[in-house]
Amino acid sequence: MNKRGFASDNNSGIHPEILKAIEKANSGHTTGYGGDIYTEQATEKFRDLFGNDTDVYFCFNGTGANVLSINTLARSFHSVLCPATAHINVDECGAPEKISGSKIIGIDTPDGKLTPELVKPHLHGFGFEHHSQPGILSISQATEMGTIYKPDELSALTKLAHDHNMYVHMDGARIANAAVSLNLSFREISRDVGIDALSFGGTKNGMMMGEAVVFLNKQLSVNAKYFRKQAAQLFSKMRFVSAQFLAYFENDLWKKNALHANNMAAFLAQEVEKRGIKITQKVEANGVFAILDDEIRDQLQQAYFFYPWDENNHEVRWMTSFDTREEDIVLFCKKLEELLNG
Amino acid sequence: MNKRGFASDNNSGIHPEILKAIEKANSGHTTGYGGDIYTEQATEKFRDLFGNDTDVYFCFNGTGANVLSINTLARSFHSVLCPATAHINVDECGAPEKISGSKIIGIDTPDGKLTPELVKPHLHGFGFEHHSQPGILSISQATEMGTIYKPDELSALTKLAHDHNMYVHMDGARIANAAVSLNLSFREISRDVGIDALSFGGTKNGMMMGEAVVFLNKQLSVNAKYFRKQAAQLFSKMRFVSAQFLAYFENDLWKKNALHANNMAAFLAQEVEKRGIKITQKVEANGVFAILDDEIRDQLQQAYFFYPWDENNHEVRWMTSFDTREEDIVLFCKKLEELLNG
Amino acid sequence: MNKRGFASDNNSGIHPEILKAIEKANSGHTTGYGGDIYTEQATEKFRDLFGNDTDVYFCFNGTGANVLSINTLARSFHSVLCPATAHINVDECGAPEKISGSKIIGIDTPDGKLTPELVKPHLHGFGFEHHSQPGILSISQATEMGTIYKPDELSALTKLAHDHNMYVHMDGARIANAAVSLNLSFREISRDVGIDALSFGGTKNGMMMGEAVVFLNKQLSVNAKYFRKQAAQLFSKMRFVSAQFLAYFENDLWKKNALHANNMAAFLAQEVEKRGIKITQKVEANGVFAILDDEIRDQLQQAYFFYPWDENNHEVRWMTSFDTREEDIVLFCKKLEELLNG
Amino acid sequence: MNKRGFASDNNSGIHPEILKAIEKANSGHTTGYGGDIYTEQATEKFRDLFGNDTDVYFCFNGTGANVLSINTLARSFHSVLCPATAHINVDECGAPEKISGSKIIGIDTPDGKLTPELVKPHLHGFGFEHHSQPGILSISQATEMGTIYKPDELSALTKLAHDHNMYVHMDGARIANAAVSLNLSFREISRDVGIDALSFGGTKNGMMMGEAVVFLNKQLSVNAKYFRKQAAQLFSKMRFVSAQFLAYFENDLWKKNALHANNMAAFLAQEVEKRGIKITQKVEANGVFAILDDEIRDQLQQAYFFYPWDENNHEVRWMTSFDTREEDIVLFCKKLEELLNG
Repeated sequence: MNKRGFASDNNSGIHPEILKAIEKANSGHTTGYGGDIYTEQATEKFRDLFGNDTDVYFCFNGTGANVLSINTLARSFHSVLCPATAHINVDECGAPEKISGSKIIGIDTPDGKLTPELVKPHLHGFGFEHHSQPGILSISQATEMGTIYKPDELSALTKLAHDHNMYVHMDGARIANAAVSLNLSFREISRDVGIDALSFGGTKNGMMMGEAVVFLNKQLSVNAKYFRKQAAQLFSKMRFVSAQFLAYFENDLWKKNALHANNMAAFLAQEVEKRGIKITQKVEANGVFAILDDEIRDQLQQAYFFYPWDENNHEVRWMTSFDTREEDIVLFCKKLEELLNG
Repeated sequence: MNKRGFASDNNSGIHPEILKAIEKANSGHTTGYGGDIYTEQATEKFRDLFGNDTDVYFCFNGTGANVLSINTLARSFHSVLCPATAHINVDECGAPEKISGSKIIGIDTPDGKLTPELVKPHLHGFGFEHHSQPGILSISQATEMGTIYKPDELSALTKLAHDHNMYVHMDGARIANAAVSLNLSFREISRDVGIDALSFGGTKNGMMMGEAVVFLNKQLSVNAKYFRKQAAQLFSKMRFVSAQFLAYFENDLWKKNALHANNMAAFLAQEVEKRGIKITQKVEANGVFAILDDEIRDQLQQAYFFYPWDENNHEVRWMTSFDTREEDIVLFCKKLEELLNG
Repeated sequence: MNKRGFASDNNSGIHPEILKAIEKANSGHTTGYGGDIYTEQATEKFRDLFGNDTDVYFCFNGTGANVLSINTLARSFHSVLCPATAHINVDECGAPEKISGSKIIGIDTPDGKLTPELVKPHLHGFGFEHHSQPGILSISQATEMGTIYKPDELSALTKLAHDHNMYVHMDGARIANAAVSLNLSFREISRDVGIDALSFGGTKNGMMMGEAVVFLNKQLSVNAKYFRKQAAQLFSKMRFVSAQFLAYFENDLWKKNALHANNMAAFLAQEVEKRGIKITQKVEANGVFAILDDEIRDQLQQAYFFYPWDENNHEVRWMTSFDTREEDIVLFCKKLEELLNG
Repeated sequence: MNKRGFASDNNSGIHPEILKAIEKANSGHTTGYGGDIYTEQATEKFRDLFGNDTDVYFCFNGTGANVLSINTLARSFHSVLCPATAHINVDECGAPEKISGSKIIGIDTPDGKLTPELVKPHLHGFGFEHHSQPGILSISQATEMGTIYKPDELSALTKLAHDHNMYVHMDGARIANAAVSLNLSFREISRDVGIDALSFGGTKNGMMMGEAVVFLNKQLSVNAKYFRKQAAQLFSKMRFVSAQFLAYFENDLWKKNALHANNMAAFLAQEVEKRGIKITQKVEANGVFAILDDEIRDQLQQAYFFYPWDENNHEVRWMTSFDTREEDIVLFCKKLEELLNG
């Protein structure tokens, strides 16, 4: 049995219900590349959740989904405004720039969240050919800092963007965590607040792998199928992703998983705070950011692999996931306490 | 139960042993992006098979593996010479051109196979900056036409390429079918005949999904990890591909699967020939190409989905796979016979 | 005095009237990047010549103009069908693939000219995401083989393309030579026959440098100014190209230059034929293609630099230009004769 | 006579000596694409100035030279660190990202100049495939803010970069202004302080057009000729740029021009300061940045076109050039004074 830790929600495995769905779909032959009944049903399910005017493109991973989103919404002369901490800005090795040719502009934020005030200084140069044209606003929900946009915060951003003829992309690698945190539906935090395209994540919340680009306006996605193929994101045996999505939505499995992960993060935050550890960001989803003495960190990492976040500030990141158990946190905190008591 | 047909080997499902390996790997947490024991072992296995000076990069799909190969071996000013029928030339929506910027030059062949004679007229313009520089020779083994290169044919091509400072890439989406057809090891038809990089396929031969770029010279692949990330081919829960590869090699599962598929193709070819159908290509792997009257074809497609190959010549393609059964072929031929007797 | 030869029309210099125009424009300051009166007037002149619904983007060179045309008309998932001999296919080091990401498909032709029959086999796979989508038909007028499309030949091609929702690009690096050869206006061989965008050449016909992309439908070019900037084709001191174009059109200088070059090619062809040299292509513009014994060729090249065309067939290319003089041809043929008489 | 203003040094024309050189080179035929005697001599001249281990690639414009530099030194997975104000970051419409695929990271600076302290926080993630690999440090000399790096400041930056296996690119669109300001040779502020590649500008200092990428290590530039062709920067009639460079270096014309422009900027700064205008940046080259009341600015712009720099701070930019005359400044200041006196 591999030990459970707090390095990333993608260090977790596959939820048993998801695995069962893969097994169940493993019967005989189906047409490749999405021409199968599982994909048809999963697509229908997305339309149920997000509204009829929705197009869905399943992808292998989050970088693939983000790249497809940007490539479909932007041209090479556009810029994409995003928080400096955005996955597209710092965790994709420049894939968006390479694939779409666009300029990615990271904006410093205190908490991983853009605001109209932060965005406005970048809204200039429209029509001026020397300047990359602001074309997309990209935000992460939940953010890479474990924080969450409220619906009115999202509406304010999409209004600002649309007023400038820009599209809004949401990196929803952890959209499930955001939805349960806000106790809102996917639709209420995407279509209803003006999002144009969404990278919908499944991998971090119990799927083996599977992400989807959800276009909330079919006219935006007329070329998406070609860009998906060019981005090497078109799965030949697509039924095995589609079947996962079907199970993910069945009986609100996504919700149970995300709720559990969020609760575990709250519990973890509470337990480490009890031990005098300073938490640096609001714990609104499944991430905990904390200040940890370097020496303690190094020792703790010998028992549990996890990532430093901002080494200059002695900040670390701990993530919980659908399969985190209270006992994992108890043991982790016990270890931490031992080290603190040195 | 979904019906088994002959449209493509990727219409098949997951071999039970592969699925079992996924289940078995689904335990606790492991480090993401390949920092897990399954990936370590699978990589080791590839080194056993291909020799020590081998670097392996797991990818999601064949287009991803091909694009990664080309992007790593070529610069934007290079051209890639390949048969006109190559997957990279006609089945990837221009992904190689887009991702690497290189020029793909398709060369007409009678049987999907390049020869030195076919290649030589393209070996000019070296050093002339107006001309895309011939940089890669890319061949498919088995070819998209179901044919196979013999080792000496491969050696002749790699010698020609290397004499011109070009690299040789092998698209081995069906390399298992080639190996069993020749009764040779992977190494004997790649490293030993001078191949530089190989897209090693698993998906079409019983895996859920999983391909690998195998560099047969570690110096060629120093940048490959970055290009893989940029091509959105870096799987966070990589253990679930690595575990599949482990099972794929365990007890020569790959060999049994490929041998079976090839045998089924031979059987299918024999059975349709008996009914007077003309076969257009040597049946050396798991594909059967045949001439079929358009009307018969249309009727047969109502019972069995499959692809026309060259409509002008009334040519169709049938593929067998690891899970094809004799009874499937018997039923298919029965249906065909009915229509022919129409 | 540098010797005049027959290697290329771009080995020629600047026509005195063009140089005078540069000098005249060299007065005081003007707004950069095209915000000057010369550019305004030159743009107006293009509208006079091509019709009101015309947008013009001046570029530095032919590759720049071709790349801008393709980048503006095509997306990365499109293919561009062109003759195998097209400049975009063999003389631009893969720049079109690199900049637009599109696939360039060269079609073999006997004379550098596409026909509907040659194009039709490539018009398939529409809507099929595995296949680069045929998006542009690109033809050269005059062709790289010195031949010329007649208006009805052009109409047939543009009809075919438009019927398939494709655009037609004309590489008009030598459009002046074509126009005078046909005794037709620029408009009659572009807009009137259905061309969508034209690379309009000036450099090869007496300008120092200067090409223009002429969009014959303003809706096609809404993004062209950004793509021009990204292609590094936006000239800061643009007046010095615009002024050249003004002089080029003044008193039909373009026509005199092109007519002269064409006449010189006809004279050259006649003179070498007299000496028993076989001409391989119709001499319709300013190029002469001929069969020349390798040894003679090598010796002649010591006196006059020129390019072999097809070494396997002992074919060479000679180009005339606006400044070629009869005496140059006489001397050249005298030298040739000497060599032939060995 | 077009009026001289202060909008940009590229609003100026051609220095008479440069124009004379173009005329002189306009004789007969020469081999295209750089195979001419002028290019040979100009290249030799660059080697005299920069040292023997120098390769030079002439380009049409500054964006072309910068893109060629970056494309040659970086791979798509690299990042380029530069001041936020860098031309490559804000004035090239994202051309560097598009052409090389690299990530451009703009760093905020008070004066357009990077320092080791500003750079260091970005030097992390080496070897980590999720992160664009810091590959190039790009600085402008003179900067876009009219400031200048001293040799020891350059050395400190190049040492830092080289210690991290990064290359240093200098955008020298105004390197002449920097050299004369420091009273140093080109070599002393490039090779001798560790610069790897330099975009050497001519256009802004009296040439009609012409920039050069100067590689200060021939091994870096083995692929540059292909990248230049792909970037549409290979001039067919190259002699007409090369001849300009010859004249530019002849009798230190470049020095006289730059010195004059710098002196005029100093004079302009002094004159406007006399009128109570606040200068915001050190005037070390040929640019003057100043605070101007919005209303005054609007009125002044009616008489003289120039660019606002930072509208939020009421900052404007005035540039002088080789052809600016004292009388132009006197008249300009008179107009300004009138407006200030209301």
